[in-house]
Amino acid sequence: MKTPATFYHAGCSVCVEAERQVAQALDPARYEVEVVHLGEQSGRIDEAARAGVKSVPALVIGGAPFHINFGAELSALRG
Amino acid sequence: MKTPATFYHAGCSVCVEAERQVAQALDPARYEVEVVHLGEQSGRIDEAARAGVKSVPALVIGGAPFHINFGAELSALRG
Repeated sequence: MKTPATFYHAGCSVCVEAERQVAQALDPARYEVEVVHLGEQSGRIDEAARAGVKSVPALVIGGAPFHINFGAELSALRG
Repeated sequence: MKTPATFYHAGCSVCVEAERQVAQALDPARYEVEVVHLGEQSGRIDEAARAGVKSVPALVIGGAPFHINFGAELSALRG
């Protein structure tokens, strides 16, 4: 079974680069990567927060949050 | 040809987790991952700095730096 990896972003340029260079670099044989744009799917902000995400872009792998550089605070994405 | 990816760390627990969960998650078919412990290889701190690394753990992929969570400032690793 593949390990779920969720990449949370907000469409920012830092996010786009992290998605292209890191999230898409994960081994597709071992990871199932889902990309979530929190600006468009604000209903998933709480899910990201529960996983420990403080800012975007962030990658949650196997339940652990990895913040990659810094684009925006998660709190700034709440309507 | 594989894309070079260099994971810089300092042996901290944040570093160890990032190495295990992110650096080792990269697709081995597309990336050649090198792991550099800057505490043991301080001669490579300047190389990391030139690539834009400000703190560890960090992954430099295709020349671009991606800081993953935060373990220590690069400046704190200089003797």
